[in-house]
Amino acid sequence: MARRDVDVPTLVEAARSGSPRAVARLISLVEDASPKLREVMAALAPHAGRAHILGITGSPGVGKSTSTNALVGALRAQGKRVGVLAVDPSSPFSGGALLGDRVRMQEHALDPEVYIRSMASRGHLGGLSWSTPQAIRVLDAAGCDVVLVETVGVGQSEVEIVGLADTTIVLLAPGMGDGIQAAKAGILEIGDVFVVNKADRDGADATVRDIRHMISLGDRTQPNLWRPPVLKTVAAHGTGIDEVMEGIDKHLAWMTEHGELQRRRQRRAADEIEAIVLAQLRTRMGDLRGSHGMDELAARVVAGQTDPYRAADKVLADIT
Amino acid sequence: MARRDVDVPTLVEAARSGSPRAVARLISLVEDASPKLREVMAALAPHAGRAHILGITGSPGVGKSTSTNALVGALRAQGKRVGVLAVDPSSPFSGGALLGDRVRMQEHALDPEVYIRSMASRGHLGGLSWSTPQAIRVLDAAGCDVVLVETVGVGQSEVEIVGLADTTIVLLAPGMGDGIQAAKAGILEIGDVFVVNKADRDGADATVRDIRHMISLGDRTQPNLWRPPVLKTVAAHGTGIDEVMEGIDKHLAWMTEHGELQRRRQRRAADEIEAIVLAQLRTRMGDLRGSHGMDELAARVVAGQTDPYRAADKVLADIT
Repeated sequence: MARRDVDVPTLVEAARSGSPRAVARLISLVEDASPKLREVMAALAPHAGRAHILGITGSPGVGKSTSTNALVGALRAQGKRVGVLAVDPSSPFSGGALLGDRVRMQEHALDPEVYIRSMASRGHLGGLSWSTPQAIRVLDAAGCDVVLVETVGVGQSEVEIVGLADTTIVLLAPGMGDGIQAAKAGILEIGDVFVVNKADRDGADATVRDIRHMISLGDRTQPNLWRPPVLKTVAAHGTGIDEVMEGIDKHLAWMTEHGELQRRRQRRAADEIEAIVLAQLRTRMGDLRGSHGMDELAARVVAGQTDPYRAADKVLADIT
Repeated sequence: MARRDVDVPTLVEAARSGSPRAVARLISLVEDASPKLREVMAALAPHAGRAHILGITGSPGVGKSTSTNALVGALRAQGKRVGVLAVDPSSPFSGGALLGDRVRMQEHALDPEVYIRSMASRGHLGGLSWSTPQAIRVLDAAGCDVVLVETVGVGQSEVEIVGLADTTIVLLAPGMGDGIQAAKAGILEIGDVFVVNKADRDGADATVRDIRHMISLGDRTQPNLWRPPVLKTVAAHGTGIDEVMEGIDKHLAWMTEHGELQRRRQRRAADEIEAIVLAQLRTRMGDLRGSHGMDELAARVVAGQTDPYRAADKVLADIT
């Protein structure tokens, strides 16, 4: 795995002609921040930007993996190539459950047109792994029509997925997802399509009503704004999945028509650029931190010979 | 209050001759990141570095404010000028309790040699306000012999106070502070002096034993390392405060002798410089974010004409 003599153009070519091994290798290269990272990203650039990036988020227990599985099936039925990135939380406690989820996805594991990958959440960008945007780019450039990014919706990751996805699907389950809870969790703002899964359970209609009501109170009623549908599914039986697919397609069409797709992607690209810039500046500062120059500056501040702001000016001049 | 024609040298002079109004004004200037901030910091620099910075942390209910109060009394009895910075958590729920704490401190409110200030925790550096290091510098330069920084010890703020203080006092109470809990909370590493307050309650000796035992298991037993004392107080009655004062003095003497005081202060200065540099780079990036150049770069990434790393190189060149 740790071969250094990897030939990036050949690898990209192989990934684009459908080699899962090449895709895996490229994701590993970007995930490990290997020295080849820049070369990989440069080689992928001309091929990226074609996939529809779908984010799927929701609390544990709402049936995220079952729903992802059902969506993958529906997309495959349309003949589409699909990439799935499952972003695991770093918490060791949920490892078991997620392993179970992965196993459930085995249905598609042997399909060469479906690429499934679990990403470790490294926390660099909060809940989502630092390398997730880069892994999305690999799958996109490799020719996936749709990339599904599944996150355990706890805390920040829900909000972050908005930054990564073209379309964000928020999953709820009856009883868990009443309007107030949803509003508190901040999910009302992030969902482009709301899905109440396990809709054969008691309270599904009430949850749908609650969410619809909360949405109607928001800014979303303005003209030209996307009005997110609130749909019902029983993902385990495939019920309602067609309607979700339709909702996703409508959202994509609406975004394209209103220029929102380009806006979201530009914002995403700007976020990515910014994250890289900050990471590089931190590295430069880290190098400086160990240096004699920084020690001397800090000593001068302690001695009252200069103040932190003038010292910061010097550091800025040094790292820039 | 919002006068723009403030004369910084006059203000610094007034603060140094003991005007609480001038001190308050200077802290407001640094807290609000006013345009005068740089001038204030430059004017303070030659006078700073003389105060002993004491951090006091502990969970809610251990008697932090009562202990701070008792320490202020003991320091005043030695004729020392004292500054107190109480860093409030941003949580609105604890506002009431803290207000009560502030009232308890009224005992010293009319003493012109005691300056008490509540700082809002803005969360820029996690639990502690971004402006706390700068407010410490104001009190230090104004001639305080000791600056007490009291933080509600929840989460990160405990760890951060180490970065701000020369000497960190960790307060515990019987039953709350058994060794395992303390180890979990990470407070064993940060305390230079441990104080079990409310020592007239059941379980005080057991808590002292627990903490001593946990400390003995750590790295602290190496030669030349400071062995933190574990003391008992009933701060409400003033019991044991002399011993705490003695522990603080011994720690200062030990640090001075072993070069640790200089090391800690240099690390603190380097942290402060780094925080300023990062804040300024973020500002520059923020400016860029709204600019045509960034929009264009992001659009080029979206179009596959460049990749985020090459775009980041351009941004780095622009902001540096």
